[in-house]
Amino acid sequence: MLPSRVIDIPRQHLTPLELAITESSPEALVVSLAAGKWTATSVTKAFLRRAAMAQRLTNCIYELLPDQAISQARNLDDYFAEHGKPSGPLHGLPISVEAHTGLKGRDKAAGFVGWLGRKSTEDASVVKIPLEAGAVIYARTTEPQGLMALESRSNITGTTTNPHNTATSAGGPSGGESALIALRGSPLGIGSDIGGSIRSPAANCGLYGLKPSTGRLPFIGISAYAIGCETILGAIGPMSSTLGGIDLFTKTVLGSKPWLSDPLLHPIPWRDHESHIHQDGRNLVVGVMWSDGTVTPAPAVTRGLTEVVERLKLVPGIGVIEWKPFQQKAALEILLYTPDGGEAFRRHLELSGEPYAPLTAWTMRDAPGIEKLSFQGVWDWTFKREVFRYTYLQAPEMDVILCPAYPIPAPLHDTSRYWGYTSIWNLLDYPGVVFPVTKLDPERDDKDITYIPRNEFDSWCYENYNPQRQRDVPVSLQLVAKRLEEEKLLQALKEIKHKIGLPFVDCLA
Amino acid sequence: MLPSRVIDIPRQHLTPLELAITESSPEALVVSLAAGKWTATSVTKAFLRRAAMAQRLTNCIYELLPDQAISQARNLDDYFAEHGKPSGPLHGLPISVEAHTGLKGRDKAAGFVGWLGRKSTEDASVVKIPLEAGAVIYARTTEPQGLMALESRSNITGTTTNPHNTATSAGGPSGGESALIALRGSPLGIGSDIGGSIRSPAANCGLYGLKPSTGRLPFIGISAYAIGCETILGAIGPMSSTLGGIDLFTKTVLGSKPWLSDPLLHPIPWRDHESHIHQDGRNLVVGVMWSDGTVTPAPAVTRGLTEVVERLKLVPGIGVIEWKPFQQKAALEILLYTPDGGEAFRRHLELSGEPYAPLTAWTMRDAPGIEKLSFQGVWDWTFKREVFRYTYLQAPEMDVILCPAYPIPAPLHDTSRYWGYTSIWNLLDYPGVVFPVTKLDPERDDKDITYIPRNEFDSWCYENYNPQRQRDVPVSLQLVAKRLEEEKLLQALKEIKHKIGLPFVDCLA
Repeated sequence: MLPSRVIDIPRQHLTPLELAITESSPEALVVSLAAGKWTATSVTKAFLRRAAMAQRLTNCIYELLPDQAISQARNLDDYFAEHGKPSGPLHGLPISVEAHTGLKGRDKAAGFVGWLGRKSTEDASVVKIPLEAGAVIYARTTEPQGLMALESRSNITGTTTNPHNTATSAGGPSGGESALIALRGSPLGIGSDIGGSIRSPAANCGLYGLKPSTGRLPFIGISAYAIGCETILGAIGPMSSTLGGIDLFTKTVLGSKPWLSDPLLHPIPWRDHESHIHQDGRNLVVGVMWSDGTVTPAPAVTRGLTEVVERLKLVPGIGVIEWKPFQQKAALEILLYTPDGGEAFRRHLELSGEPYAPLTAWTMRDAPGIEKLSFQGVWDWTFKREVFRYTYLQAPEMDVILCPAYPIPAPLHDTSRYWGYTSIWNLLDYPGVVFPVTKLDPERDDKDITYIPRNEFDSWCYENYNPQRQRDVPVSLQLVAKRLEEEKLLQALKEIKHKIGLPFVDCLA
Repeated sequence: MLPSRVIDIPRQHLTPLELAITESSPEALVVSLAAGKWTATSVTKAFLRRAAMAQRLTNCIYELLPDQAISQARNLDDYFAEHGKPSGPLHGLPISVEAHTGLKGRDKAAGFVGWLGRKSTEDASVVKIPLEAGAVIYARTTEPQGLMALESRSNITGTTTNPHNTATSAGGPSGGESALIALRGSPLGIGSDIGGSIRSPAANCGLYGLKPSTGRLPFIGISAYAIGCETILGAIGPMSSTLGGIDLFTKTVLGSKPWLSDPLLHPIPWRDHESHIHQDGRNLVVGVMWSDGTVTPAPAVTRGLTEVVERLKLVPGIGVIEWKPFQQKAALEILLYTPDGGEAFRRHLELSGEPYAPLTAWTMRDAPGIEKLSFQGVWDWTFKREVFRYTYLQAPEMDVILCPAYPIPAPLHDTSRYWGYTSIWNLLDYPGVVFPVTKLDPERDDKDITYIPRNEFDSWCYENYNPQRQRDVPVSLQLVAKRLEEEKLLQALKEIKHKIGLPFVDCLA
């Protein structure tokens, strides 16, 4: 019988070399590989082995690709032997991908049983570019039914669990990624986010996860049932155990100038050669959103936020202000994931006759407000969305917003119903990054038994917060900047992290 | 009884000062105003007077705003007297706007009788910014029913005619603008373009008209029935008798960094301080598209294009290649202006009971392929659109594409059915600029009586080409660059214009 906390288990079964390799950060790995300290083959094999353990512990793997990955790695080693230098900035770095990221010849079921057997005709752009930069693609990770849940449960792969506490969810849709990376079975993963799908799993598992604005990282070759639906768009982004990994990936992809061949992308290079904070000696102004006014964060989340804010206030050059939730109710009303009333989703389930998973039943069928709109209804709604975006941008000036990533830390399975803390930034198309702060402590983060929930969502989250059952899970927060300010966002997080020494507790250790 | 060519008439009725003012280019006007040579009041009055004449000659005015404009001009003159300098880069420059461009307190009927009485609560962004830069808004111009035609006929204002030949159309929807500017009743106008709506009227009247990529110039405050429909988006752009006017406007608007308060805009400044052509000494490569493969251009258009290409071939530093129409048929199939089968449009007509105009009856009701789609149908179509954009971008490299603006020069009234030469660039979101080349000459541009049309559109355009009835109208062409390459596009046109001495015939003289 395995314990509920399995994050330490692989460490006990690996060789010292495998351990040294798999516990390296992505940015350290590429240095070691470029220096010839480790071969691409030994690195790939180490991660393949640890990924297999991760699968056993959390059910996070959709498919491992050992033959293809080792053959790629051998080619890279041959290149290195011949030229005496790495083949590109990601030479030999293993990268895992969420299963709906297209890989030539592999299936692209996107979480539907009825889609099994559909195959990608080529690699997704977000795979091609790292491959050309020398990366090795070796693992595909689990995802939820139809990709539409903040957890990773489907009738194809079952439920992915959180290695910090297997009674809790690894998050989703990129929950396979987050479980795998937290177990050090992958140094760097690629996910996608339409309502929190990178940030929820990264937060649940104590990782860094960046959702950029749409149109910065290439979406071509991603499989999803709602491709073509423009009411709200998804964004591709990286997940990693280090912030350096996020940087490395984003910089490498944008360094290839993908906009020259992808009309969906902004022709904006990675602008990290310039400083986007402290311009003209100004303070970095952090707006703190304690609550979104709809669902009150659980005590563990508020404690994490309090600890960060208290330390931030002592840092010269950083200004902390309150950021009242702005038009949050309007946002929830116009956040529209089912303009068709969930009809297409249901049809894709019917292809195989598979049942709804508990969370997608809620999100795609039972949640209040789900109805099929008319065309005029969608147009009116889109106009409201644009007015919302415009109005938000006229609000008082700050550099970044600091807020929860989810109202409670890694939720118990099948309970992640409320998307509001992450989906509002999808609605606004603002980049958001989550980062680990501390760990849930049942002693300090006890439930407030005097609290009276203010609405159905609030009640749901309140009732499903259980510090005893959720023990050991990471407490993460979210930092947000304005649209297309990814560089500023990461610079601000680096500064905050450095100045106050985040994370306060290293959950992955 | 007026002649069919009325372009010369206002000249005969103006004072020498009014003539000097109204025949100045926008870029010369701002210099004269900034130097104190002319007052804003005298400039505004001169254009008001000439605009009134233009209205009489072509029915191009929706509404003149003499009180507001003269009061604005007086304030500008006071500012100048007090500070001894202009109030901004457009100090005293009169600008006309298509009627659906929001002006605070004025109606925003957008071409529907049933919308009369609806009022804008504030100025459109594209008005606010020029006003802050010192411009004077003095005239609103006509537009077609519901804005959905390449001509300007509505049940509110009737038909706007082309001052070069009143039997022909001034184009549309910005046909009021083009007739007014061609008659020198305005130095600079603002239009919008979702299928050719800036370029068609500019081409018909012998002007310069730029349709930028969407998200460069601000759309906020524009009234249109399909706002919120995202299958294809409109773009705001300038029209002027000179290319310098286009430059001046675009540079001024982007100089105000409108993206800081408008989430629909790309955060890309006007990059004209750097050269976008001849980088590393390379040729400017011009791809010539003689025909789109669907509708063969009329002899007048092909002659204009031939004259340009023959001279271009002699210019060192310019390379001319053939650009075969690429996937044009696919483009026509996925160009979707009526995902709702024209339902919304019909409903807006029914508000008043007004009848369809001949061209909107065709475009919004009778054209083949109009049907109401399902949501899945729209999503599938949107996916096809993105695949089309992607595929187009993988085509062989060239700097700009040179092609017709419409298959025939300024068409006879109610005949402008074929949008393909302009709308394909809306579909691709590529910037396009039209420019005058020469004039239709019935002797040289006779109909090819041996030609056998290849389809319904081709037949329609062929039958409606009548060089005798269309005599005197300008022959214009279109230059196109890739998405968001507006600076490159204008630099290329300036170089081409300068090197081969365009226009060959000055239609506005």
